[in-house]
Amino acid sequence: MIRQSYLSSLRGLLSQKGAAAMIIPSNDCHFGEYVPEYFQVRKFLSGFSGSAGTLVISLNEAALWTDSRYFIAAEAQLKGSGIALMKEKMEGTLTIAQWIIEQGGGKVLVDGALFSYSAFRSLASELFPVACLEAISDPFIDLWTERPKLVFHTIELMPENISGKSVEKKHAEVVAKLACKKPFAYIISACDEIMWLCNIRGCDIEYNSVALSYAVVTTQEINLFCNLSNLSQPAKTYLLSQKVVLHEYSDFGSFLSKISADTIRVFDPSAINITNYEAAFTTVDEAGKEAVSKYDPTIGGTVAMLRCRKNAVEVAGFKKALLYDGVAWVKLLKYIDDNVQSAALTEGCISEKLIALRKEFSDYCGESFEPIVALNANAASAHYSIEDGQGAKITTRGFMLMDTGAHYYYGTTDTTRTLFFCEPDSKLCEQMKVDYTLVLKGVIALSKAIFPVNTRGSQLDILARGPMYATGKMYYHGTSHGIGHRLCVHESPQIRKEESPIVLDEGMVMSIEPAVYIEGKYGIRTENMAVVVPYMTTEFGKFFRFETLTLVPIESAAVDFGLLNDDEKQWLKSFNENVLDSLAPYLSESEKQWYRNKYYGK
Amino acid sequence: MIRQSYLSSLRGLLSQKGAAAMIIPSNDCHFGEYVPEYFQVRKFLSGFSGSAGTLVISLNEAALWTDSRYFIAAEAQLKGSGIALMKEKMEGTLTIAQWIIEQGGGKVLVDGALFSYSAFRSLASELFPVACLEAISDPFIDLWTERPKLVFHTIELMPENISGKSVEKKHAEVVAKLACKKPFAYIISACDEIMWLCNIRGCDIEYNSVALSYAVVTTQEINLFCNLSNLSQPAKTYLLSQKVVLHEYSDFGSFLSKISADTIRVFDPSAINITNYEAAFTTVDEAGKEAVSKYDPTIGGTVAMLRCRKNAVEVAGFKKALLYDGVAWVKLLKYIDDNVQSAALTEGCISEKLIALRKEFSDYCGESFEPIVALNANAASAHYSIEDGQGAKITTRGFMLMDTGAHYYYGTTDTTRTLFFCEPDSKLCEQMKVDYTLVLKGVIALSKAIFPVNTRGSQLDILARGPMYATGKMYYHGTSHGIGHRLCVHESPQIRKEESPIVLDEGMVMSIEPAVYIEGKYGIRTENMAVVVPYMTTEFGKFFRFETLTLVPIESAAVDFGLLNDDEKQWLKSFNENVLDSLAPYLSESEKQWYRNKYYGK
Repeated sequence: MIRQSYLSSLRGLLSQKGAAAMIIPSNDCHFGEYVPEYFQVRKFLSGFSGSAGTLVISLNEAALWTDSRYFIAAEAQLKGSGIALMKEKMEGTLTIAQWIIEQGGGKVLVDGALFSYSAFRSLASELFPVACLEAISDPFIDLWTERPKLVFHTIELMPENISGKSVEKKHAEVVAKLACKKPFAYIISACDEIMWLCNIRGCDIEYNSVALSYAVVTTQEINLFCNLSNLSQPAKTYLLSQKVVLHEYSDFGSFLSKISADTIRVFDPSAINITNYEAAFTTVDEAGKEAVSKYDPTIGGTVAMLRCRKNAVEVAGFKKALLYDGVAWVKLLKYIDDNVQSAALTEGCISEKLIALRKEFSDYCGESFEPIVALNANAASAHYSIEDGQGAKITTRGFMLMDTGAHYYYGTTDTTRTLFFCEPDSKLCEQMKVDYTLVLKGVIALSKAIFPVNTRGSQLDILARGPMYATGKMYYHGTSHGIGHRLCVHESPQIRKEESPIVLDEGMVMSIEPAVYIEGKYGIRTENMAVVVPYMTTEFGKFFRFETLTLVPIESAAVDFGLLNDDEKQWLKSFNENVLDSLAPYLSESEKQWYRNKYYGK
Repeated sequence: MIRQSYLSSLRGLLSQKGAAAMIIPSNDCHFGEYVPEYFQVRKFLSGFSGSAGTLVISLNEAALWTDSRYFIAAEAQLKGSGIALMKEKMEGTLTIAQWIIEQGGGKVLVDGALFSYSAFRSLASELFPVACLEAISDPFIDLWTERPKLVFHTIELMPENISGKSVEKKHAEVVAKLACKKPFAYIISACDEIMWLCNIRGCDIEYNSVALSYAVVTTQEINLFCNLSNLSQPAKTYLLSQKVVLHEYSDFGSFLSKISADTIRVFDPSAINITNYEAAFTTVDEAGKEAVSKYDPTIGGTVAMLRCRKNAVEVAGFKKALLYDGVAWVKLLKYIDDNVQSAALTEGCISEKLIALRKEFSDYCGESFEPIVALNANAASAHYSIEDGQGAKITTRGFMLMDTGAHYYYGTTDTTRTLFFCEPDSKLCEQMKVDYTLVLKGVIALSKAIFPVNTRGSQLDILARGPMYATGKMYYHGTSHGIGHRLCVHESPQIRKEESPIVLDEGMVMSIEPAVYIEGKYGIRTENMAVVVPYMTTEFGKFFRFETLTLVPIESAAVDFGLLNDDEKQWLKSFNENVLDSLAPYLSESEKQWYRNKYYGK
């Protein structure tokens, strides 16, 4: 086996460096959600293809840690590899540090580009004093002979009539936030933050309109590090007009190492890798200690916080994107309705059909994540993707969960609907209708929420979960995530059970997506996008509400109307009517008639 | 002025010790909510009588910090004293540390008994390097000649048929929680924790059934420090039978200083004072550093966490207390109804009448806090107390807020009701009814909540606040607090907007008290007590609900029923009917008839 030979080479390297083990995580040096093939060393070495997992190779053993989403897949893919599966957070599973300590400790190697400062520090302290971490440079440049290339694609300008704000203005906002920290060098590794800051977009990472890049912001300028030959001429011209200093992507490390000693380094400790961290502190020997103590992790998130409050032009772009996406969705829903009796539909063809319908809009730039179309039990696992061919045939009745989204030039979409198919006159079983309705009640309660300034997401979470709790059910994922403006579909802020200090604020564009998953049977999720808008200002202060943005009808035939109160019924009716009102100019008469028949029933 | 002479003596002391200032807080060395007269140095020196405030005396200046509840009172009471009022959390107000730094810093004295370890540390770091803190022993023992005595009262046994658990069992539970920390000395300064742990009650502090005491728990035993001559014989006999080693209150410091070096000191850093902290670490010189690093603040709260999950016997005691309290309340409500037309009622006489009615039960042991009876605008300040005589006469129509509670031998109560008085056929103004109804909707929503294990209070808070937010209103205090079992009426856990890691669990007895305050007009609060009980266990885990405990009817004549949905109407109807069903055996026929006429209307 080819992998075994790589494992042997790696163990040779360990011996040569006097090390006991090496840890290989799943991320790249920018710590985004998706990772280019070039960085997928863990997948290559272990054969395990899931998105999350950490491989540890010691001189005689190997083990891979992954979470509950991937236990079944990992077990199958690791079979015969000699790599033990470590089920994260299950009782009795050792942590990586415990496993290394149990093996006797020693020197443990990591690729310094793939460990954040905070991850490195916390692992090092867990290992102390039995084992120590040593950051090295990527050994797979030599070891992995057939490694995929690191590909850089064209970087386009996102003009101000779409981004809504000049780079100079954004730069000034960042400087204002950091006013007390002058002189500073604010180091940014997150590609989507850099795209937002510089009004550019790339396509180096699947489903994400980002270019591999770094940035260092100072009071005077933004230093952008990217593959300069890929910069489109309009982008280059614009950036130079906006005080942006252009550097080659590969010059980032040496730039960091030349930051002057009296400059305060500002960075997000969970987003800077240890190699860059060390480079940034090379000039600050003794004084370096002071410089480190001055960094402020909350300020490290400045660009992320500025980015998640969308401006009016960005919100208008989202609305336009959701309008066109809604048209594609409605056409798809009619197509499914027209063809479901023919038994010719599959999960795969529905997914392809929606993409085809989206492509009819010239502003479509691709999907914003891998589409999920999952029939019945397939939807009960939160991360279903079709393994072979076209997936399940739509022949049996029941629920079909569809979670898909797209990028348009001016905005990103993310919508989930759960359809049901039944023989004429047959009825959904009562329990299925109850579950569908409880999810809907959660959507409505959160969509109607009114809340004052300084409200955190975790305070609102119960509104979405409460109806389900009443019947002893719950879902394990978050209720809401922020959505990037033609960037990553997942960004801050979030609404979840877990605490986060981020408060909801005007312009934040977010999903609302309660769900329920019944193992082996079905999964139900209803997801809308919404934006936080002002509601009223009284003697008690300012209050916000959500404005729902999504324009895709909600299946009402699966609703148990006995469980809805009058306000909830009215919300659903208005929602479906408003969708048609908005989409009508783009629909044919027969489409509109079909829509009214299907969604105006109650 | 006598105070001026004390200020001069204190400044003499400052000069003598080479110090620039002294900080005088409002607490005692146990950091409870109420403080014995003996410790009220700040009140004595400043003349300001509010419960919260910190006085700082420098060589030439003096200033007092207090919060918004007390701005008006403090302004009046400080007039002419030469002490500047510092309005906490208002824009432009210096913090204590900033004020001291602005005065030039230097050595700042504090009474080491009155500063917790964590408060001392955080203030010291704020002051560094311009000023430094020095803990001294209480200088007012000499300076304050007419100081009230520190009075110790009888300590009674709380027998196991009321506490529901032996001290040996409680000790074993604490030891089990600390199993990984042996050998340990778990230092407890909070009097109510000690009362719970030792099955005793005292009355050294107003409204709180606690004796001034300390404890140190080890694997082998509980060391109790109290005024031994005040221990009742049954208490003494019981404690000795339960592995409790008895010490004089005054021997606590020397006991701490003799803890052996290899013992891990476990303590709550926000509850141990700096004098005791230093005593506890005298034997651990160099090794002391390690010992400090081993303390675990979460474990320091062990007794508090065990205490707040009430056992079945304690819950039964609460129910009995609320039954008798409900009888007193209903008799009071009828008395008010019978006499309101006579114009003879005052806030003060209503308060006295309720106490008189409670005293008819021989198990009554006193009020659990200073009763609040506040008419209209008086209720708009959350902490109203009658300043002179009998308070307002009940002549005008409008709202009257009544928040009172009592201790019975087997439980503590805390109930708020807002009554309204109106001429026959007159109507409450619509806005008042709306506000009253929104508060009630909050009570109902939280009372009906279903939630899974590991739910924190802050996750449920929105249920109580949400209805009010919808009209742009809010209240600034917490939604709920835990209630001690014949102990302090305020304890953990809490439901509030602010995050706390404490999760709600079976047996926790809590208030549910949304409110709204309209300045200059009226205040509305409806407060029930509830206990967390199991709801159901499903494949998704265990779920809890609240069981409402309070047996006092809720005014329904002020409800705008158009704002309630059917479930809410049913909740209110069932609640008031259930109260009468429970209290009926203790009420006369005419009382029952009056109740039905008044509360069965809708």
